[in-house]
Amino acid sequence: MLIQGSTISHNYLQSFKTAVSELLLRKPGLAVVLVGNDPASAIYVDRKIKACEVVGVLSFKRSLPENISEKDLLLEIQKLNNDPLVDGILVQLPLPPHIDSNKVISFIDPNKDVDGFHPLNMGKLLIGDTSGFVPCTPLGIKLLLEETLGNINGKHVVIIGRSIVVGKPLAALLMQREANLNCTVTVINRFSQNLKEITREADILIPAVGKPNFVTSDMVKEGATVIDVGINRIEDPQAKKGYRIVGDVDFTNVHPICEHITPVPGGVGPMTIAMLIHNTLKGFHLHNK
Amino acid sequence: MLIQGSTISHNYLQSFKTAVSELLLRKPGLAVVLVGNDPASAIYVDRKIKACEVVGVLSFKRSLPENISEKDLLLEIQKLNNDPLVDGILVQLPLPPHIDSNKVISFIDPNKDVDGFHPLNMGKLLIGDTSGFVPCTPLGIKLLLEETLGNINGKHVVIIGRSIVVGKPLAALLMQREANLNCTVTVINRFSQNLKEITREADILIPAVGKPNFVTSDMVKEGATVIDVGINRIEDPQAKKGYRIVGDVDFTNVHPICEHITPVPGGVGPMTIAMLIHNTLKGFHLHNK
Repeated sequence: MLIQGSTISHNYLQSFKTAVSELLLRKPGLAVVLVGNDPASAIYVDRKIKACEVVGVLSFKRSLPENISEKDLLLEIQKLNNDPLVDGILVQLPLPPHIDSNKVISFIDPNKDVDGFHPLNMGKLLIGDTSGFVPCTPLGIKLLLEETLGNINGKHVVIIGRSIVVGKPLAALLMQREANLNCTVTVINRFSQNLKEITREADILIPAVGKPNFVTSDMVKEGATVIDVGINRIEDPQAKKGYRIVGDVDFTNVHPICEHITPVPGGVGPMTIAMLIHNTLKGFHLHNK
Repeated sequence: MLIQGSTISHNYLQSFKTAVSELLLRKPGLAVVLVGNDPASAIYVDRKIKACEVVGVLSFKRSLPENISEKDLLLEIQKLNNDPLVDGILVQLPLPPHIDSNKVISFIDPNKDVDGFHPLNMGKLLIGDTSGFVPCTPLGIKLLLEETLGNINGKHVVIIGRSIVVGKPLAALLMQREANLNCTVTVINRFSQNLKEITREADILIPAVGKPNFVTSDMVKEGATVIDVGINRIEDPQAKKGYRIVGDVDFTNVHPICEHITPVPGGVGPMTIAMLIHNTLKGFHLHNK
C-alpha cells in the first residue's frame, strides 16, 4: 500500500490554514534566508514560501550573495532574531564553504529555530523535552507512521544514515517515552557490518542515504514498512527535463514485499514542508504566550 | 576476560593528577551540590570529592536541606555559575520531588555543566560538536571499549535502557563519525519486541536497566563484549552489611560466553568518577582560554 505523503501533507496544510485564519492580532511570519544561486536550494525555498502563501503565513525572503561574509550573514540573522514579526527563521542549507554552518545555526534564536538544528533544540529532542522544535523531516516521518500504522510501540525501526537533518534527530524522536512511540531504534552507517542481516530485522526501514537503488529487495523483511527519505536525480532521456527524481529504494522490486511504502516524489518530501509550517505556528504561539 | 575498570580508572586519575600538578596559576574547582539526606547520594558525593582530593582538584561541597525551595536552589546555582573559582557544577540526582530537575539542570551554566545533562550539551553531543561536555558514564564506557577492543568501527552496539544519564547520550556518542567509533547502535526499551533476538545480534551489549540478572546467557552472542552499567543492591545475609552490589547481568552464566565483561563493582562505576574529573579539567581549560 502506497503511503500518500502528498495527501496527508495537504490535509495538514488545510488544518493549519484554518488555524491561521482564526488568528486575530497578526499572522505568523517565516523568514527564509537563501545564500547564493544553487538551483536546487532555490527550488526548495520557493516551495516553502508557496506553502506559507497557501496557509496564510507571512514569508520574508532574504536572498544574499554567494560571497557574503560570515559576519554579514550573522548580522542579517541578528536582525531577524530581533524582529517581532518573525516567528521562524530558516537558513537554507548547504551554505557556501567559506561559511561555518554550525556557527550560523547556533546563532539563530532557539525560539525561532523552525528547522530544529540548533544544538539546544537537538538536546531537548534527545532528552524528551517537548518545548523545543523537532526537525521537519523526522517530525513528518513520525506523523506518516502514525497515520499509516497507528501504534508503533515496541516496533523495530532501522534508520540508514546518521545526518543531522534526518538520521540523528529521527533516532532521538522515535526512541522517546511516548504512548505511540517507544520504538526499538537502530542507526546504521557506511561502516556497519552485516548490513543486510540488520535491515532484514526492521519492522520499519528508513533509508536516508542519497543513493538510488541502495535498498534492494533482499534487505527488506516481508511485510515491513519502508519510508524512503532519499531524493536523487537520475538521468532519464524520456523525461521532459532529461532527469527524474527517485528515492534510495529499488522501488520496483521492494514494493511487492512491503506492507507499506512511500513513493518518491510524493512521500516524505511534502510532509517536510507541512512540518515547517507546523513549526512556524509553534514559534508564533511561543512568542505570543 | 574481565575488564578492569578500577585499574583503568586509576591510571586516568594518575594522569590527571600529573596534569593538575603542572598548573601554575590556580587549581581547577568542582562544586558538588547535595540536596537532602539520601544515603546513596551521600556516598556518591563522597566518592566524587575523594577523587578530587586524589587528583588535586579543589572541591566545594554545598549540602542543602531536603525542604529547600526550587527558587533558593536556583539562587545557589547562580552563585556557583558566577564564581570564577568554580569550573564544574554537579547537582547530585535525584532531587526531592518538589523540585523540577530539568529546570535545575537547564539553569547550570552550560560551560560548567560537567555532568553533561544540560540540553545544549546533549544537543552538541548528538550533532557531533565536541566543544560540549559528554556525560560521565557514556564517556567512561567509550574509553573502556577503546582500551579493551581498540577499534570498534562498524560494530553493533545494543544498549538496553534509554535514560538521560546513560542510554540516550551513549547512543548519541557511539554513533558519531569518528575514526574509532562509527558503531551501528540499537537502543532497546521495555516495550521492545523480540528482545532476545536483538540482544543476540550485539557485538557489544550494554545493559543499563537497574534489574539484577536481567541479562541471561540466552540473550548474549558467543564472543560478545558485555558492559554492565547496572548498580543494584541485593540482600546477602553472609555479607557484613547484609547486602551486596550486583549489576544487570547474570554474571555466573554470562561470563563463560563473553570475550570481555565488566565486573560490578569495579567496572563502569570507577570510570564514571574518573570522567567527572576529566570534565572538570575540560571546564577549567574552557574558562582559561
